[in-house]
Amino acid sequence: MSDRLEEFRTYRQRMNDRILAQDNLDIRRFFALDGRVYQEGALPVATKELLGLVASLVLRCDDCISYHMAGCREAGVTDEEIFEALSIGLVVGGSITIPHLRRAVDFLDSLDGQS
Amino acid sequence: MSDRLEEFRTYRQRMNDRILAQDNLDIRRFFALDGRVYQEGALPVATKELLGLVASLVLRCDDCISYHMAGCREAGVTDEEIFEALSIGLVVGGSITIPHLRRAVDFLDSLDGQS
Amino acid sequence: MSDRLEEFRTYRQRMNDRILAQDNLDIRRFFALDGRVYQEGALPVATKELLGLVASLVLRCDDCISYHMAGCREAGVTDEEIFEALSIGLVVGGSITIPHLRRAVDFLDSLDGQS
Amino acid sequence: MSDRLEEFRTYRQRMNDRILAQDNLDIRRFFALDGRVYQEGALPVATKELLGLVASLVLRCDDCISYHMAGCREAGVTDEEIFEALSIGLVVGGSITIPHLRRAVDFLDSLDGQS
Amino acid sequence: MSDRLEEFRTYRQRMNDRILAQDNLDIRRFFALDGRVYQEGALPVATKELLGLVASLVLRCDDCISYHMAGCREAGVTDEEIFEALSIGLVVGGSITIPHLRRAVDFLDSLDGQS
Amino acid sequence: MSDRLEEFRTYRQRMNDRILAQDNLDIRRFFALDGRVYQEGALPVATKELLGLVASLVLRCDDCISYHMAGCREAGVTDEEIFEALSIGLVVGGSITIPHLRRAVDFLDSLDGQS
Repeated sequence: MSDRLEEFRTYRQRMNDRILAQDNLDIRRFFALDGRVYQEGALPVATKELLGLVASLVLRCDDCISYHMAGCREAGVTDEEIFEALSIGLVVGGSITIPHLRRAVDFLDSLDGQS
Repeated sequence: MSDRLEEFRTYRQRMNDRILAQDNLDIRRFFALDGRVYQEGALPVATKELLGLVASLVLRCDDCISYHMAGCREAGVTDEEIFEALSIGLVVGGSITIPHLRRAVDFLDSLDGQS
Repeated sequence: MSDRLEEFRTYRQRMNDRILAQDNLDIRRFFALDGRVYQEGALPVATKELLGLVASLVLRCDDCISYHMAGCREAGVTDEEIFEALSIGLVVGGSITIPHLRRAVDFLDSLDGQS
Repeated sequence: MSDRLEEFRTYRQRMNDRILAQDNLDIRRFFALDGRVYQEGALPVATKELLGLVASLVLRCDDCISYHMAGCREAGVTDEEIFEALSIGLVVGGSITIPHLRRAVDFLDSLDGQS
Repeated sequence: MSDRLEEFRTYRQRMNDRILAQDNLDIRRFFALDGRVYQEGALPVATKELLGLVASLVLRCDDCISYHMAGCREAGVTDEEIFEALSIGLVVGGSITIPHLRRAVDFLDSLDGQS
Repeated sequence: MSDRLEEFRTYRQRMNDRILAQDNLDIRRFFALDGRVYQEGALPVATKELLGLVASLVLRCDDCISYHMAGCREAGVTDEEIFEALSIGLVVGGSITIPHLRRAVDFLDSLDGQS
C-alpha cells in the first residue's frame, strides 16, 4: 500500500476515533447511519459505492471520493465501470469537478499500485 | 399521465428546442454529451439513471431529479432500489436535501399514477 | 395563520408521512436524527434554531429557512436577533442568498400575520 | 413588459424596501455594496453584468440570473455574446445548470417581448 | 501555540494585508463588513461565532471553520456547545462535511494544545 | 517561473494525459469542449477568461482559479480589471470565498514573479 493511501487511512481512523470518543450521541448516530446505507440491500454494494463515488465527485470532496473509490475496488468494480460513473459525475457537475477527477484517478492508480 | 408530468415535459422540450435552435455549437455539443453518458455501456442504463438521480439529489435540482426518476422507472428500477439510492443521497447531502426528497417522492407517485 | 403557511405545513406533513411509510429504515433514522439535533441541550433551542436558520440561508433552501424561521419565533427569538443572524448568513453566503433573504423575510412577516 | 417580468420586479422592489426598512446597518451596507460592484470601472458595465450572469448560472439562482440578464440587455450585450457566456457557465457548472439555462433563455425571450 | 495554528494565522494576515493594499475600495468594504457582523449586538459574540462556525461547516471551508473555531474558544464556548453546533452542521450538510469535521476537531485540539 | 506554478502545471498535464489515455470517449469529448468555450468568439478571450475566473471563485475551486488567472494574464488583463472581477465574485459568493481569494492573489503574485 502506498504511503499516501496509508496516511489517508490513518488520519481518517484517528480522527473518527477522536470524534466518536466525544460525548455527543447525535454525531455517533450519524456516523453509524453513514456506514449502514452502503451495506448490501436491494442494491448490491458495488452500485452503492458507485453512487457514493459520483455523489462525492459532484459535491467535490477529495476524501469522500478516495473513500468510495477504494470501496468500488473492494466490491470488484472494473476500470471501465468506474470511468463511466466518473463521466456522469463530470457531465452533471461540470469542469469544476476536473481537478477532483485528476486526484480521483491519481488515487485509483495508487490503489492499484501503479504510482 | 398527470398534468404536472405533462407540463414538466412540454416546457423541457420547448426550451430545449429553443436553445438548440440558437447558433451556439458548444451548447449543442454539451446537450448531445449529456444524452450520451446515460446510454448502455459497461454499466447498465438502470445504474446510470440511479447515478444521475443521486447526483441530482445531492446537488438539489428538482427538474434533474424528476428527469432521472422517470429514467429509473423506464429502466425498471424498483421502489426498494430507488429508496435505497435516495437514502444514500440523503445521508451524503444532509437534511438540506429533504425538501427535494419530498418533491422527488411526490413526483415518483405521480409517475406511478398514485396522485 | 396565512394560507401560504398552512399550505407549506400541510404539504410537508403529507410527504413526510408518505416517506416514513416506505419500508426504508435508514431514511426513518435520518428523519429522527434531524429532529433530535434541535432539542434543548448545552445550547438552548433558540440558538439551535438560529444555527438551522443560518445554515439553511447559506445553503439556499427556502423550505428549510421557513421551517427554522418558524422555530425561531416559537423559541422567542426577537426581530433584532433574527436579522443579525440573517446578516451573518448574507455576508458568509454572499448576494446569491438575497432572493432567499427576501422570501425569508416575507415568510417571517406572514408568520407574524403582517402580510 | 410581460406580466412575468413585471411581477419579478415588483416583488423584488417590495421586499428590498421591507428589508432596508429594518434597523440593521450591516444588511443595508451589503445591499449598497452589491450595487456598487457592477458600476462602470476599469471593466465596462457590459462585462460586469456578464460576470454576474455567469456567476449566477453556476450558482444556480434563477432570480439572480434574471436580474443580470436584464442588466446585460440594458448594457447592449448581444444574443451571441450572451449565449457564449452561458456556454461557459454550462461547461463550468455542468448539466445541473440546464434547468436554469432553460429559464434564463425563457426570461431573455420575455425581456425581448418574444413570449 | 502550535506551528499549524501559527502558519494559518501568518498566511491569513499576510494575504489580507496584500489584498487590502490593492486599490479596490469594494473589496476593502467587504472585508470591513465581514468583521462587523460578528461583533456584539442583540446576539452575543459566542452565538455569532457559532453561527459562523456552522455556516462554514455546511459550506465546507476549512479555513473559515478554523477561524470561527478560534473565535468560539475566545468567546468561551464550551466543548459540549461546540459539538452540539457541529452535530447540527453535520445533519444539515450531510456526510460530505465529515472530512471537514475531522479537520475541525483536529484544529480545536491544536487550539487547546492537545496535539 | 516559480516552483509552485511549475508543479501545478506538471501535475495538471500528467493527470490530463492519464485521463485522456483511458478509453472513455465521453470524458475526452468533455475535455475538448472545456477548451473550446474559452476560444475567441463574439466575446474576446480576455472576457472569457474573466468569466472562467469569477465562475471558479464563486464555486471555490483553487486549481480552476489558478488556471483562469494565468489565462487572464496571458490575455493581457490588467491588475485593476482582475481585482474588479474578483470583487464581483466576492460579493456574489460571500466571505466563504475569502480563503480562495487569498490564494488567488498569492498565485497572481507568483505568476508575476513577485513571490
